[in-house]
Amino acid sequence: VSLRIAQFGLGPIGLETLRLAARKPWVEVIGAIDIDPAKAGRDLGELTELSTLSGRQVYPSLPDLLRVGKPDVILHTVVSRFKQALPQLEPIVQQGINIVSSCEELVFPQLREPDLASRFNELCQRHQSRVLGTGVNPGFVMDLLPLCLTGVSCAVESVHVQRVVNASLRRGPLQKKIGSGLDPELFRGLLEREEAGHAGLGESLALIAHALGWRIEKMAERRAAIVADHPMETAHVQVSPGQCCGIHQRAEAQVGGRTCLTLDLKMFLDAPNAHDAIQIKGEPPLNVRVDGGIAGDRATVAALVNALPRLLQVPPGLRLLTDLPLPRIA
Amino acid sequence: VSLRIAQFGLGPIGLETLRLAARKPWVEVIGAIDIDPAKAGRDLGELTELSTLSGRQVYPSLPDLLRVGKPDVILHTVVSRFKQALPQLEPIVQQGINIVSSCEELVFPQLREPDLASRFNELCQRHQSRVLGTGVNPGFVMDLLPLCLTGVSCAVESVHVQRVVNASLRRGPLQKKIGSGLDPELFRGLLEREEAGHAGLGESLALIAHALGWRIEKMAERRAAIVADHPMETAHVQVSPGQCCGIHQRAEAQVGGRTCLTLDLKMFLDAPNAHDAIQIKGEPPLNVRVDGGIAGDRATVAALVNALPRLLQVPPGLRLLTDLPLPRIA
Repeated sequence: VSLRIAQFGLGPIGLETLRLAARKPWVEVIGAIDIDPAKAGRDLGELTELSTLSGRQVYPSLPDLLRVGKPDVILHTVVSRFKQALPQLEPIVQQGINIVSSCEELVFPQLREPDLASRFNELCQRHQSRVLGTGVNPGFVMDLLPLCLTGVSCAVESVHVQRVVNASLRRGPLQKKIGSGLDPELFRGLLEREEAGHAGLGESLALIAHALGWRIEKMAERRAAIVADHPMETAHVQVSPGQCCGIHQRAEAQVGGRTCLTLDLKMFLDAPNAHDAIQIKGEPPLNVRVDGGIAGDRATVAALVNALPRLLQVPPGLRLLTDLPLPRIA
Repeated sequence: VSLRIAQFGLGPIGLETLRLAARKPWVEVIGAIDIDPAKAGRDLGELTELSTLSGRQVYPSLPDLLRVGKPDVILHTVVSRFKQALPQLEPIVQQGINIVSSCEELVFPQLREPDLASRFNELCQRHQSRVLGTGVNPGFVMDLLPLCLTGVSCAVESVHVQRVVNASLRRGPLQKKIGSGLDPELFRGLLEREEAGHAGLGESLALIAHALGWRIEKMAERRAAIVADHPMETAHVQVSPGQCCGIHQRAEAQVGGRTCLTLDLKMFLDAPNAHDAIQIKGEPPLNVRVDGGIAGDRATVAALVNALPRLLQVPPGLRLLTDLPLPRIA
């Protein structure tokens, strides 16, 4: 055992992250944090159905966890927005504990909150703590994987990524997040005000541009509702024709007066032909397709746990995925 | 300008590497080395048809080059075997100069020459020099790219990579290397004695295993000739039916009693349906296809030049590609 970890947030992704981490021979789980009073005090062996975790507990706060021990890294799976994550992350960093988080905006926090990100980076460095945001989207399919492909490019003119996700196969919260069963007028309003939809497309664009040394002149994102044309039913929702069954989001960035980066994401119930496609125009041209797509939740959990040893290899600070060595299973 | 480079080896790949490097605003080319008496003394502007390089020269040896200046990095594109490269690389390392090389065996020199590799690593560290072997195959399609994909894997059971290359679109030396126009009996003898064929499949297997922490129990490679069934003609060769027109190589590695790694490479003239395919069995399963394949020579040259800034970010020594940050265009 070389790494003591704790899990912050015990929703579906948090529980799966904890289960995967606990399977690694180099990980020791010391406990978890969840503010839900129904979870605090419970036994992790019981919550995860992993007998190896019995005797480890859920604590209602960081100070309570710290009373039983100090982890090397906390896996954080709580919120999507950097600003909401920050009050949870700061006290952890002040203890010199490292963080791997699924917070979407943390994949490139400099995009929406450059000042907060800069101050948070200083805090991390002062306390010798490393913080990383990662995941599949953002964090892999629409940013890291296309970037990796440009490693064999003499020239890159544009990067286009298209992702079609069959949401019928995903967890309940995701099916609700994409508006399943909602009235289209209502959901469109939520999407326009960015109160609904998938977070992270802008962060992926910004991460690609940053790593390629491109200066984005203009960035735009459209969020549209997809409406069901037939009755749909999953383990979690029922949708009638005319109700929402998913989202179509598209983010574009202009560099040098041209649209050079385009990310197109469709997530809807009963989506046929799910896939990820990466098209790099340049020298040589590259066309890559992932049949079936990179499956959401399992891959997200893997991205979080696999980042642990790589994060510890880089200097303290608020880090970007592109600072770390090549991704690989840990 | 932040990087002074020199090119060692002015064959087709060396010249293209030099041209691409010279295009980068952060590169200053100080000269080149080639032992060919027909090239020594010639002007690089004339050889590369790049006016920005006129006044820079080809020198017959390292000491001659060093008289005009000391590069930060030498791009080395001369031989495939580590043992043949070593007498060329050692004097460079002794000057504290870094090296990026296309030498196939240098992608994982520990495979065939563990003692030499270990001593060479000590030499690099003593002289604060970094040495890296890279390319497309080995160096990307059959090792780095599949490894990167496992970054979103909870579990990996096996990795299978298949590559079909249409050699008709490639340079003359490659068309000859794959036996085009030779008598099958003769070429099969050369392949069996490993005097012909494509180098690097074993190195790719070993690099994947190393990065995944897998211990290879058994490794085997088969090299077969592909025989033409119709007349073929390229800019460089003519092939009659019954003569060789390409190679089929397959390398396999056993881990834990099972064949877990398989690399399958076909390179032949008039190959239809050229592509690269990566299949990772595990959780989640991943099926990735590169339509048309990652085009050989341009991509090789890009891999070499794009590695320059990333190599300088890691500590001195004989480095592996998996030690470096995520590949990207530089």
